[in-house]
Amino acid sequence: LPTLGQAEWQALPEQAPVPADNPMSAAKIELGKTLYFDPRLSSTGTVSCNSCHNVMLGGDDNRDVSMGVHGKTGNRNAPTVWNSAFNASQFWDGRAADLEEQAKGPVTNPVEMAMKDLDTAIEAIRAIPGYEPMFTQAFGPDSVSEDNMARAIAAYERTLITPNSPYDRYVKGDREALTAQQLRGMEAFKQAGCVSCHSGPAFNGADLARDGGGLFMKFPLFTDNPYVERYDFMADQGRAEATGKAADEYMWKVPTLRNVALTAPYFHNGSVKTLDEAVRVMAKTQLNQELSEQQVEDIVAFLGALTGEFPEQSLPRLPGTPGFTIIQ
Amino acid sequence: LPTLGQAEWQALPEQAPVPADNPMSAAKIELGKTLYFDPRLSSTGTVSCNSCHNVMLGGDDNRDVSMGVHGKTGNRNAPTVWNSAFNASQFWDGRAADLEEQAKGPVTNPVEMAMKDLDTAIEAIRAIPGYEPMFTQAFGPDSVSEDNMARAIAAYERTLITPNSPYDRYVKGDREALTAQQLRGMEAFKQAGCVSCHSGPAFNGADLARDGGGLFMKFPLFTDNPYVERYDFMADQGRAEATGKAADEYMWKVPTLRNVALTAPYFHNGSVKTLDEAVRVMAKTQLNQELSEQQVEDIVAFLGALTGEFPEQSLPRLPGTPGFTIIQ
Ligand code: HEC
Ligand code: HEC
Ligand code: HEC
Ligand code: HEC
Ligand SMILES: [Ca+2]
Ligand SMILES: [Ca+2]
Ligand SMILES: [Ca+2]
Ligand SMILES: [Mg+2]
Repeated sequence: LPTLGQAEWQALPEQAPVPADNPMSAAKIELGKTLYFDPRLSSTGTVSCNSCHNVMLGGDDNRDVSMGVHGKTGNRNAPTVWNSAFNASQFWDGRAADLEEQAKGPVTNPVEMAMKDLDTAIEAIRAIPGYEPMFTQAFGPDSVSEDNMARAIAAYERTLITPNSPYDRYVKGDREALTAQQLRGMEAFKQAGCVSCHSGPAFNGADLARDGGGLFMKFPLFTDNPYVERYDFMADQGRAEATGKAADEYMWKVPTLRNVALTAPYFHNGSVKTLDEAVRVMAKTQLNQELSEQQVEDIVAFLGALTGEFPEQSLPRLPGTPGFTIIQ
Repeated sequence: LPTLGQAEWQALPEQAPVPADNPMSAAKIELGKTLYFDPRLSSTGTVSCNSCHNVMLGGDDNRDVSMGVHGKTGNRNAPTVWNSAFNASQFWDGRAADLEEQAKGPVTNPVEMAMKDLDTAIEAIRAIPGYEPMFTQAFGPDSVSEDNMARAIAAYERTLITPNSPYDRYVKGDREALTAQQLRGMEAFKQAGCVSCHSGPAFNGADLARDGGGLFMKFPLFTDNPYVERYDFMADQGRAEATGKAADEYMWKVPTLRNVALTAPYFHNGSVKTLDEAVRVMAKTQLNQELSEQQVEDIVAFLGALTGEFPEQSLPRLPGTPGFTIIQ
């Protein structure tokens, strides 16, 4: 049985870390949730944050690459928003330092929400009369701005935490919480060396991040295997695409494995359809190991024990535009 | 002041009529809500009923014509689902007899959810393990079928009622519920003759429907005015497009005016952007009248009093696909 009490087995905190310059408040969270669900922040009026990061699902869209306005697709898979507050940086390549910085990206991304610029997005928000009082409640008077939009969304995202997975209950002392197979998988996950990258309470190595920028690792680390070509893993150079630095070629943020059973397909390009294949790929590309089919199944069972409880949420009411529409 | 106690001023019932062959149950409503929000019922995995009939908004999408998978558009505006249970028939042209019949249409409509056929949609539902037990709870064992999918969605839609609008409170005796302007508008709405079509508790003439098929009226009735060309009102022949009968040319179901302030743009083609212009159009095309600007504003204020209370709802959790995705 896996040894407990070691640093590597940590339960998910019930609260996410909150930056000093963006304290949480009920009004801010409610505003953030409302913006998060509002498709009028897109050029067509059809795409909201929740379109690609569906909190009714695993916080993603279960697509290989996401689909934004006019059916346009990018080249990356949508990561989950659930527990994204525990990431040391945001995006597959960690190019945003935090949720506040991240939240300004999608609104103007041409294959996502495709607003002309952030000013246009803020104009849209201003044109919806009900938003102004919500900003006032959250940030004080005259506070409709892109920074506060991003702050509110980030505050809402910090509430998206899924505690009490079977794994968490086990780690907290409930010895019945995991099945025998899940326990074997937990041991195999450790023995194989997965924990060397997927460590800490969110299994994203955030605890090992040295510079506040997350734990970045090369992927694929071992390229001499059929997976690399089959799944086209070298097409996207990862962090180097953002930084332009040779040292960042094929460097990727270690992603969380929380709720990973719900976020198929897998990897930055969404090329791997099933979790068992993702485990095989990891063992080979990151550790140069071949797992037995039994080990793969056990690890998959263990990863299933990382599916937490999704807090019940009420549907926000999006403020209306009485007698007119802001969608062109 | 408008005379009360007359048949034409009726409050919205708190319950919608329920057909004998589809009784309501908590399990059925929950299943229906889950299906209603599930984008995996579309070919791309991105479009749910709620995409076009957003219950967080006015039950529509605030677009001129709706946008389905791959950004495709049809030629009709999305009507609200709120209070659609009070319609005597469904669609602008009433071509579906009830909500059950209606619910099977969008899933396979190529510009909406675009599933190849209903069997494909049912296969998708079967491939999501969590749905089977929900169907069993709602309909008994072995009950995953297109009819039950439609029944569940219809049951959920029958809960989408917005009571207690200022108008309802006024009709029920609260003399303070309407402003002086709204009362003038109510009187003007009656005097102008709007009530001859927009009658009954939902202002959709359902009470006048003779054959269970809703109240159908010609639109435009008077064509000798600039609006007809400006807004392209003769391009779509309405009910005749579905029935092929000359008698149905330009016949349209009288739509509800409940929450109409939230459902811009207006008319079957979504060509009129504002409610004040919609009122001007109606007066001219249906009654051959020119209203004064004061009358228009008063009627708009009255129509604003038809915005009801939106019951708080919890976000459904969509059942997951552990370790795989059903989206191609
Ligand atoms: C059309 C799809 C789409 C929309 C809309 C969208 N996203 Fe994303 N999101 C993505 C994709 C794809 C990525 C990964 C991109 C990358 O890493 O280069 C991503 C990344 C993220 C991340 C980083 C998560 C992590 O683990 O690194 C967060 C947080 C996030 N999005 C939140 C949002 C918010 C908030 C909105 C709305 C303001 C939004 N997204 C709108 C597709 C979308
Ligand atoms: C050397 C670092 C490293 C090791 C060791 C490692 N991983 Fe990973 N893992 C990563 C990185 C980086 C990614 C993201 C790769 C990408 O998509 O670009 C990842 C992605 C994943 C994913 C896909 C996550 C998603 O949301 O798509 C799974 C599942 C996973 N790892 C499981 C494992 C398992 C199981 C092991 C051990 C057999 C393991 N990892 C070992 C670094 C590592
Ligand atoms: C891509 C947009 C889109 C999607 C998705 C969509 N609808 Fe619709 N819906 C429309 C449009 C447009 C109409 C009007 C079509 C017409 O009248 O010819 C309509 C009509 C209706 C009506 C009739 C309302 C009335 O007042 O007559 C109901 C009820 C309805 N839809 C419910 C649903 C349900 C349930 C789903 C999912 C199973 C759904 N819709 C999916 C766009 C959409
Ligand atoms: C002779 C019947 C008739 C009369 C009289 C009538 N209406 Fe209508 N009304 C309709 C029909 C039919 C439609 C739907 C037309 C279409 O879009 O195809 C409609 C649509 C509307 C709409 C747009 C609803 C929407 O959701 O797009 C509004 C607003 C409206 N009517 C208000 C009024 C007002 C105000 C009056 C009086 C000034 C009035 N109506 C008189 C039959 C009538
Ligand atoms: Ca940081
Ligand atoms: Ca994924
Ligand atoms: Ca409309
Ligand atoms: Mg019937």
